[in-house]
Amino acid sequence: MSLIDFSGFVNDLATHSGKAILPFFRTTLAIHDKAHGGAFDPVTEADRAGESTMRHLIRRHFPSHGIVGEEFGSENEDAELVWVLDPVDGTRAFMAGLPLWGTLIGLTRAGKPAFGMMHQPFTGERFSGDGRAARYVGPGGERTLRARSCATLAEATLSATSPRMFEGERLAAFERVEKAARLTRFGCDCYAYCMIAAGHVDLVIEDGLKPYDIVPLIPIIEGAGGVVTSWDGGDPTKGGGVVAAGDPRVHEQALTLLAGG
Amino acid sequence: MSLIDFSGFVNDLATHSGKAILPFFRTTLAIHDKAHGGAFDPVTEADRAGESTMRHLIRRHFPSHGIVGEEFGSENEDAELVWVLDPVDGTRAFMAGLPLWGTLIGLTRAGKPAFGMMHQPFTGERFSGDGRAARYVGPGGERTLRARSCATLAEATLSATSPRMFEGERLAAFERVEKAARLTRFGCDCYAYCMIAAGHVDLVIEDGLKPYDIVPLIPIIEGAGGVVTSWDGGDPTKGGGVVAAGDPRVHEQALTLLAGG
Repeated sequence: MSLIDFSGFVNDLATHSGKAILPFFRTTLAIHDKAHGGAFDPVTEADRAGESTMRHLIRRHFPSHGIVGEEFGSENEDAELVWVLDPVDGTRAFMAGLPLWGTLIGLTRAGKPAFGMMHQPFTGERFSGDGRAARYVGPGGERTLRARSCATLAEATLSATSPRMFEGERLAAFERVEKAARLTRFGCDCYAYCMIAAGHVDLVIEDGLKPYDIVPLIPIIEGAGGVVTSWDGGDPTKGGGVVAAGDPRVHEQALTLLAGG
Repeated sequence: MSLIDFSGFVNDLATHSGKAILPFFRTTLAIHDKAHGGAFDPVTEADRAGESTMRHLIRRHFPSHGIVGEEFGSENEDAELVWVLDPVDGTRAFMAGLPLWGTLIGLTRAGKPAFGMMHQPFTGERFSGDGRAARYVGPGGERTLRARSCATLAEATLSATSPRMFEGERLAAFERVEKAARLTRFGCDCYAYCMIAAGHVDLVIEDGLKPYDIVPLIPIIEGAGGVVTSWDGGDPTKGGGVVAAGDPRVHEQALTLLAGG
C-alpha cells in the first residue's frame, strides 16, 4: 500500500480536527499551565478537542498504527506506521487571536517522516507533502509548492517564532545568522516552514522544538525541494534545534555560522 | 454631516484597495529599497497600487479633503478632513507570505482621529471604529468589538512586531514590561492593535512608528474601550513610541515601567 493512499484520510483528520478546534479560536478559554514551575506554556481546550478527534478516527480506521500526540502522549509508538499529532502548533498565536497557528498531522514509516500536513482552519489553508512533492489548497485555489532559489544569506528572508527561544551561546549563534540575513521576521510558528515550501521565506532557525513540532512539516519542506536538519546537520526528527531552508546553499551557510562562523 | 456617514465610503476604499493589493500577495515582487543606507525597508508594487486606488477614489468623491499616505506623501494636509493611508502595514509579513499585514484607512477631523479601518483582504476581515464604538466583519460574521478587562500586567498578553524595533534604553524599558507580562507574542503588526479591540491581546508596545501606522487604528482601539498614548502618556498621533492597552490599569502599569519602574 502506497503511503500516498493516506492523503484522503489525512484530509479527513484535518477537516474533523478543524471543526473541533475552530469554535475555541478567539473565545475566552480555560487555560491550564502544564509547565511545572517553568515558562508559561498554555494548553487549550482546543488542543484537547482536536487531538481527541484525531485519535478517535485513527483508532477506528487503523487500530494497528501508533500515535504520538502533544496532549495525550504516545501509544504503540513502535508500530511500522505512527501518527505524529500537534493539534494546535503555535499556542501563543492562537491565544493572541492570530491565524498563524496550525494543526500538524504527520505519518512516519519505520521512524522516518513519510507524509505531513499543516492545516489552518481559520484561513482554510492546507499545506501537505510526502517528501517527493508538496501541495497547497486554500482560498486562492490549488497549486504545487516549490521552494525558491536563494544563493546567499545576504539575500535571505529569515524567520523564527521568537528570539526568546534561544539562550546563551545559542542566542549568539542565531544572531550571527540574523546579522547576515537580508531581513528577519519573528512570530511565524509552523506557518514559517510552509512559507519555505511556498517560496516566500528562505530560512527558518528555531530551538527547543518537540518532535511533533517538526516531524509533520519535514515531508512538506522536502517535498517542495527544501532542506531541513538539526543545527549540526543531523536528523531533525528528534526536535531541539532545527534549520530549514529552501535552497541548500543558504542552509549550508547558516550551519557554518551557527557552528561558530 | 456626521462622520459615521463616511463608513460606506471607507468600505469602498477597502474593497477597491484590496482588489489592487491582493494579486501581489505571495507572488515574486520587484522590491525597491527606499531606505538610504539605512535598515531594509521594502516597498512593494502592492503598496503603490493600493494607495493609488484609494487616492483616486478620494480625489473623485471628496476633492476638498486632504490625504497623507505612506507611499505618495501629503496633499492638502491642512484641510478639516484628512485621510491617512497605509496600504500595506506590515510589509515584512507581506513579504514572508503571512496574512498579518493590513490596509490602514484613517480619517482625521481637525487633526484628531475620527474614523479608522484595518482591512485584511486575504482573510476577508475588517476592523473599524469611530472612537465611540468598534465593529468586526469577517468570515465568522459581524460583531461589536470590546477590549477585555485585565487588572495587572502579570495577567497580560503583550505584543510587539519585533524586539529589534527598540534600541538602547528603550529596549531596556520594553524588557522591563516584557518580564512583568504573562506572555509576549512578537510579529503581529497592525493585527495586534485589532486584537486589543477584539479582547485577545491586552497590551501592545512599539517604537519608531509613523503617524499613518497608528492614526487609523486609534478610533478602533478607543471605540472598543481601549487606551492608546505615546510612551509618556501623551498624544499618540505623531507616531514614535506607542502604548495601547485594553484596560487602563494595564496601560498605567506599563507607562510606569517604561518610565523607569
